[in-house]
Amino acid sequence: MSDVLERLKVSIRLPPFHAWLGVELIGGDAKAGTATVRMAFKPEFRRSPDSAQIHGGVIAALADIAGDYALAVTLGGGVPTIDLRVDYLRPAEGDLLATARTVKKGRTIGVADVEIKDAAGRLIAVGRGAYSTQIG
Amino acid sequence: MSDVLERLKVSIRLPPFHAWLGVELIGGDAKAGTATVRMAFKPEFRRSPDSAQIHGGVIAALADIAGDYALAVTLGGGVPTIDLRVDYLRPAEGDLLATARTVKKGRTIGVADVEIKDAAGRLIAVGRGAYSTQIG
Amino acid sequence: MSDVLERLKVSIRLPPFHAWLGVELIGGDAKAGTATVRMAFKPEFRRSPDSAQIHGGVIAALADIAGDYALAVTLGGGVPTIDLRVDYLRPAEGDLLATARTVKKGRTIGVADVEIKDAAGRLIAVGRGAYSTQIG
Amino acid sequence: MSDVLERLKVSIRLPPFHAWLGVELIGGDAKAGTATVRMAFKPEFRRSPDSAQIHGGVIAALADIAGDYALAVTLGGGVPTIDLRVDYLRPAEGDLLATARTVKKGRTIGVADVEIKDAAGRLIAVGRGAYSTQIG
Repeated sequence: MSDVLERLKVSIRLPPFHAWLGVELIGGDAKAGTATVRMAFKPEFRRSPDSAQIHGGVIAALADIAGDYALAVTLGGGVPTIDLRVDYLRPAEGDLLATARTVKKGRTIGVADVEIKDAAGRLIAVGRGAYSTQIG
Repeated sequence: MSDVLERLKVSIRLPPFHAWLGVELIGGDAKAGTATVRMAFKPEFRRSPDSAQIHGGVIAALADIAGDYALAVTLGGGVPTIDLRVDYLRPAEGDLLATARTVKKGRTIGVADVEIKDAAGRLIAVGRGAYSTQIG
Repeated sequence: MSDVLERLKVSIRLPPFHAWLGVELIGGDAKAGTATVRMAFKPEFRRSPDSAQIHGGVIAALADIAGDYALAVTLGGGVPTIDLRVDYLRPAEGDLLATARTVKKGRTIGVADVEIKDAAGRLIAVGRGAYSTQIG
Repeated sequence: MSDVLERLKVSIRLPPFHAWLGVELIGGDAKAGTATVRMAFKPEFRRSPDSAQIHGGVIAALADIAGDYALAVTLGGGVPTIDLRVDYLRPAEGDLLATARTVKKGRTIGVADVEIKDAAGRLIAVGRGAYSTQIG
């Protein structure tokens, strides 16, 4: 199982959009269906030229990726997103950490929950995604 | 009113994340509360090094921005996203066009619907966002 | 095709919860994937003993049912809901009319949009549901 | 604080739709912003005359109510729902227990998460609602 995690730690960097975001898979548990994804701050993430706050679109992307990898650590690879929901709780700055857990892993549908925190440990957004596990 | 649209066509390019995505406000109607946002394809948008398909996180970001600008053309400026939902309908490639319309413009809450199509006019995703109009 | 609609107009009344709500399928188009569902007001729908406003849970149920039937008119029968989102736009009173349309009808996933209006034609809520078409 | 909980245990039964559903507030914590709502099975809840499974609309209503009361135990009373999302994880039968917790309690917006389990303790649905705390 840890082999899958080691393999995913490498493969998460391969998609060009992941490479640009700089997302890293820093933990996960295949049995529990969890994944922890870190995303270091980049100036291009900002929602305004006058602010260090991160754009909501970047946060949505991180939520999608973390939820996907919560299922991927169990299924062995990423799965297509059916739908994604993100609730923005407070403005976000700096490096972010997304912790995702599998809520359901069905034959055709998987559901994952995501919490995104800033470096101070404040919860800045929550996400929930439905994924198509059939192709997993 | 068209002055607002002309001003927003300039200001939409200023946020660093918008500049990176390359989003352009190409139309909108302040009375109807609509906005049309174009996003030209970039190789960094891809979900895999072996595919031209665009990552769902990029599509979520486009949905968030287009919904925001449907309200902005009426309110005069962008507003914070409360929550966002995106439904992915088919794989997306190439340049994308997001058409957003205001569903509700309340004193504290606004709701906008977004349709995202590819260059062939196929609907590839729909989005719906709730925004905080109080700070607008 | 109109045979399917006639059959569904009868069968929509059979589920005990539908019978209690009093939902009626009053229109639909199998080719377009649309359905119109009417729900007459009942005092038990109220959100407060001092108000005629309808509880959000009743409105969510109507959205779920209408979205389901937008797909059912094409598929021939109801399909399980994967997830549902409802946005409440204004307080609702009296008889309600839900108009639903198919956004996607895939092999495994269907998506439907719902608009709910009151007797004065005011939009009081919008809904969007993902449904499992595989079992349809 | 426990006075608020005791008062809400009485007042949750007053809305006519709550009375029909039979929802009971059986626990909660004002400091943590949590609420536990029980709903005993009624034959009218069924999704089919041939099945004991509960209709998704009933489950959505329970999610809405439980999320509302997670905020109400802190705010002192129910608050209007802005939007509600429900993910259906497995068919539900019998008495249900909804456990809700406050994710955010802002000046204008509150967010609550809900888990709904059956009598065997199986997770059958999760919900998330945004609520307008301004009127709370």
